[in-house]
Amino acid sequence: MEKGIPIVISAPSGCGKDTILEQLFKINDNLVYSVSATTRAPREGEVDGQSYYFHTRESFEKMIADNEVLEYTEYCGNYYGTPKKAVEDMLAAGKDVILKIEVEGAMNIKKIFDECVLIFVLPPSIAELERRLRKRGSETEETIAARIKQARTELEFADKFDYLVVNGALEKAVEDVNTVILSEKMAAKRNAELLDMVKNS
Amino acid sequence: MEKGIPIVISAPSGCGKDTILEQLFKINDNLVYSVSATTRAPREGEVDGQSYYFHTRESFEKMIADNEVLEYTEYCGNYYGTPKKAVEDMLAAGKDVILKIEVEGAMNIKKIFDECVLIFVLPPSIAELERRLRKRGSETEETIAARIKQARTELEFADKFDYLVVNGALEKAVEDVNTVILSEKMAAKRNAELLDMVKNS
Repeated sequence: MEKGIPIVISAPSGCGKDTILEQLFKINDNLVYSVSATTRAPREGEVDGQSYYFHTRESFEKMIADNEVLEYTEYCGNYYGTPKKAVEDMLAAGKDVILKIEVEGAMNIKKIFDECVLIFVLPPSIAELERRLRKRGSETEETIAARIKQARTELEFADKFDYLVVNGALEKAVEDVNTVILSEKMAAKRNAELLDMVKNS
Repeated sequence: MEKGIPIVISAPSGCGKDTILEQLFKINDNLVYSVSATTRAPREGEVDGQSYYFHTRESFEKMIADNEVLEYTEYCGNYYGTPKKAVEDMLAAGKDVILKIEVEGAMNIKKIFDECVLIFVLPPSIAELERRLRKRGSETEETIAARIKQARTELEFADKFDYLVVNGALEKAVEDVNTVILSEKMAAKRNAELLDMVKNS
């Protein structure tokens, strides 16, 4: 069986990445989501290995030391990271693994998985992104300005990604991300076994 | 406007490449077909610039000398080739250009258009290819054996292509080729203008 593909999806905040992923899982049943590891305490109803892999600070630091996390950050005194083994197991099982990683962190994944596919979700325009952030109603003008500034910084990395998907209309964006994934499944470099099978048939 | 993509489709004889293309043009209206140039005489009903670009031997040889053909072959005393200018004009107009080129010739196109996409259409198996060739009823056992031998030679080039599409069921193969094309339209390297537009919005 051919290995699955690590698929990194990154986007500035407000570009609708989570909504796209939610819909994407409904139309592509070979996708799995990479569950993050964290040292924060489980909240009510959270299941280990589903919401997160819950770790003590010691065991998380051991994972880091043993090179068992793909990438990690520390936020509000807790570690958050992507466990390497879980991702590798899913890939070996032929599943395509969605890695939701912030834009700058995505650049490091290519060094670990050179076969990975990097998808950057773009807003149709900065003005539209601003309108969407404002529409939430929950953000102060200051936060909106900070997010727009951050989005501009992140857009500077977009040309380092493999694909750009514009989230104008949600349904189209979901279809576009899926098109990229289905197309990558047909890449010759990912189908050595198939080719051998045909040659030897 | 972003430039179109040169798309090379190659396949061993009997893999259903022509049927796939016929259906593909019905579902993708940004595709155009690269019309070949030839020195053979027009047949009744053939229109210059539609069936072929008809040339005298002298003007065809001048095109070759002036590096105006992407690739050419001589067959039954007549030249057949792909005129560079027509393809470049269509690409500049944003159209994706289908180039139907034999497997070994496809390898040279990448040197001319490094932005091109190479798609290899595979049979599900050699046994199935043989069955299809035999089903035509028009081929001798000798011809079938020769075609199978040729197919095996061509399959050795398949891993040099960008994508492999298996023609098992026609409709699926047509969809697969279109998926590859639509995905390539989203490649970051092909969308510098889009990215600039969003950045400066």
